[in-house]
Amino acid sequence: MNNTTLTTSALVELDKQHFTHPWTVFDVYQQQGALPIAEAKGCYITDSNGKRYLDAVGGLWCTNIGLGRTEMADAIAEQCRQMAFANPFVDMTNIPATQLAAKLAELAPGDLNHTIFTCGGSTAVDSSYRLIQYYQNCRGKHDKKHIISRNNSYHGSTYLSMSIGGKAGDHPVEFDFISDFIHHISCPNFYRAAAGMSEAEYLQQLLDELEQKILTIGPDKVAAFYAEPIFGAGGVIVPPAGYHQATWAICKKYDVLYVSDEVVTSFGRLGHWFASWDVFGIKPDIITTAKGITSGYQPLGACIYSDRIHQVISEPGHGRCFAHGFTYSGHPVACAAALKNIEIIEREQLLQRVLDIGPYFQQQMKTLQDLPIVGQVRGQQLMVCVENVRDKVSKSLFDEELDIGKRIADHAEDLGLIVRPIVHLNVMSPPLTITKDEVDFIVRTLRQAIERTINDLQQQGHLPTPAQQKTA
Amino acid sequence: MNNTTLTTSALVELDKQHFTHPWTVFDVYQQQGALPIAEAKGCYITDSNGKRYLDAVGGLWCTNIGLGRTEMADAIAEQCRQMAFANPFVDMTNIPATQLAAKLAELAPGDLNHTIFTCGGSTAVDSSYRLIQYYQNCRGKHDKKHIISRNNSYHGSTYLSMSIGGKAGDHPVEFDFISDFIHHISCPNFYRAAAGMSEAEYLQQLLDELEQKILTIGPDKVAAFYAEPIFGAGGVIVPPAGYHQATWAICKKYDVLYVSDEVVTSFGRLGHWFASWDVFGIKPDIITTAKGITSGYQPLGACIYSDRIHQVISEPGHGRCFAHGFTYSGHPVACAAALKNIEIIEREQLLQRVLDIGPYFQQQMKTLQDLPIVGQVRGQQLMVCVENVRDKVSKSLFDEELDIGKRIADHAEDLGLIVRPIVHLNVMSPPLTITKDEVDFIVRTLRQAIERTINDLQQQGHLPTPAQQKTA
Repeated sequence: MNNTTLTTSALVELDKQHFTHPWTVFDVYQQQGALPIAEAKGCYITDSNGKRYLDAVGGLWCTNIGLGRTEMADAIAEQCRQMAFANPFVDMTNIPATQLAAKLAELAPGDLNHTIFTCGGSTAVDSSYRLIQYYQNCRGKHDKKHIISRNNSYHGSTYLSMSIGGKAGDHPVEFDFISDFIHHISCPNFYRAAAGMSEAEYLQQLLDELEQKILTIGPDKVAAFYAEPIFGAGGVIVPPAGYHQATWAICKKYDVLYVSDEVVTSFGRLGHWFASWDVFGIKPDIITTAKGITSGYQPLGACIYSDRIHQVISEPGHGRCFAHGFTYSGHPVACAAALKNIEIIEREQLLQRVLDIGPYFQQQMKTLQDLPIVGQVRGQQLMVCVENVRDKVSKSLFDEELDIGKRIADHAEDLGLIVRPIVHLNVMSPPLTITKDEVDFIVRTLRQAIERTINDLQQQGHLPTPAQQKTA
Repeated sequence: MNNTTLTTSALVELDKQHFTHPWTVFDVYQQQGALPIAEAKGCYITDSNGKRYLDAVGGLWCTNIGLGRTEMADAIAEQCRQMAFANPFVDMTNIPATQLAAKLAELAPGDLNHTIFTCGGSTAVDSSYRLIQYYQNCRGKHDKKHIISRNNSYHGSTYLSMSIGGKAGDHPVEFDFISDFIHHISCPNFYRAAAGMSEAEYLQQLLDELEQKILTIGPDKVAAFYAEPIFGAGGVIVPPAGYHQATWAICKKYDVLYVSDEVVTSFGRLGHWFASWDVFGIKPDIITTAKGITSGYQPLGACIYSDRIHQVISEPGHGRCFAHGFTYSGHPVACAAALKNIEIIEREQLLQRVLDIGPYFQQQMKTLQDLPIVGQVRGQQLMVCVENVRDKVSKSLFDEELDIGKRIADHAEDLGLIVRPIVHLNVMSPPLTITKDEVDFIVRTLRQAIERTINDLQQQGHLPTPAQQKTA
């Protein structure tokens, strides 16, 4: 079923004329346009020409329970009929938002019992920093506002959250960023550690760097450390074992709030509701989440924070007003979708399912490491990244203009598989419902796509052909 | 029908423990809690005890077509079943988003043909400024980044958009704000102009101030002027006639982009799709919108910008990437809701309806001006504000702690009417479907609520009783 009478080429043209997409590369988009998607069921999407793809990206790290579920559509429609909107400001609340806030307190670790609702991850992160300002000012610590985050991190796309992020590609010269109170330290990527260094030595170097950064800025000035448990858009980088707990300990030592950005890692992606405690053994002061909270059916984000913070900001007798929030904070339809999504994850035991299939997915993906341009396959449970390199020994990369990730993704697309290109990387995060057969299809198809890309690169002189290799 | 088995008092308690509402006054909230809303149909909402209210606030300036429409629920459910999410990044698009982007280009004035989708007004404004940075950097105008906005304006609640806003109440000492590139000038509120000044003199003073501010900062440094056509949360302030066109002319003179923040004023609130051109005769460079775009059924916002800006940023041959956007940019379900909402506004000729009923609403509301504490009733079409004063001649206000707007709103709530309190103001923006009888109910009930409040104030010694007045 198609909800438009326009042809694909007419849609592509209309899209070019009017829709400025996230991360548009203008030159390429004007040439190629965007592929119109018309339908989505489970982990499959269908374009406006009727071609079907397995979407191994899971939308954008978000379609956790899989798309097209009648039960979700019914719950959303029912909430629309009953109460499609209610003003969340001060005097009024709405039942799905109250219920979801209570449910999040139950699912989140430690004493993270308070939720500021937003419409996505970017505003969850933006709100978390406004909350931190408020908290520090209430405590009289007016200078304690600096943030430490990591190179290669992604924390969203508001002016503030993009400034907290540390991906070089997201900081092109055409944008400006806040730099006076945001500081970046190294990305904990052991694959790129200095040659000959042990993982323990590398970890110690990272911890020293964090502590030194706090001391250099001044512990009286550093308010918070922002960290994704596993880097998402930065390329599924899993820090060395012990990194999370040790950085958490350093933060506690210097009264630095730990903000765990779980927009990607929560709601089952790593086999748990939240990864901070259950996977990495830390209880952050704030968790930001979005994406899997509704499995992408509805825009929703949340900044979940601790009793300790709440006690400070809400201390009676000050007449304080928390002048922050959005028209759509706790949108009843989005909250009803989240509640139904959580119910489905519970009923179908999808967290356990991830713990069952996740290791198989990682193991099968790692078989691609025999390919001559696959430098590393890394990840955990249902997050995976293939890092493509020109040379596996030196780990040197292809020229960025070759757009190696995109070349592989384009071949995969031809073969009916969607993988996400990020410069020289390909990342995947399929729905939690992914089957063993579908994992096999992904691995088989991605292998084919990489082989085709190698062949192209050889034909175009960017890689030596087998014959040339023999000669050399 | 109620989707929970919890009692109202259990809901209120759960809400207090877990949901940090926008603009929570902690002391009051901990005492009183929030009223749980369970149902919404047309312009009526019903609380969890079954009490029904006419919601004259229209949710929060947003329930334009009225809530509970089966047709909206069906369109939303159908889109959920067919394709609840599609990755909007670069390579892919989705049909409802493409169609909505094209529709917005048709409805928006001038050459505003390009849309950046967001999930609400705050991110539309935040995105608009990131777009402006990008535009100025592409033009090589790296210093031209300063913003001028107005005192009392509201532009959203991200760190950036809240810094652009100029409401004193939204800038409490517990929050920090960007001040190095954001400047505020006077709110064009003739009611508060110096005594004896004519409206023409007042207008000239405002225009001189804007021009002088641009010259003081330096025209090579001022990037944009942000303005709501009519102030929303600032208290429905309609600038003097000629203000919009004259400020627009000044902006054009100094190459300053005009950003018209139509989050409140678009999609019928003033009887037109957008107010900038059709009501006020200006063609801004950027329009930000949200709220009425879906009538609140779904979180959605848009930053709509001109061909001129697009030509600069997308100029071929630079390899530029627009590294900005959100997972839920162009969310298919939200866009499908917007398309259906627009279809309903067109089919039921709701714009014309506003032009028909709006003047009656304003005229009837103005009858409240005979009340001794109503200083001014102001507004246009379906936006209205009652400004309460202690003294109608001096226009002096009640002490803020008396929370006069809240007292009136509480009495109105008892009487079955929701009006929004903002310190000493009460604002209203009912659905576009409001009837003459409902207008009469609003005016009659609000009169009663104000009379009860006057009585309370007299009993409590904050206002002289009629007997005391006679004696004096």
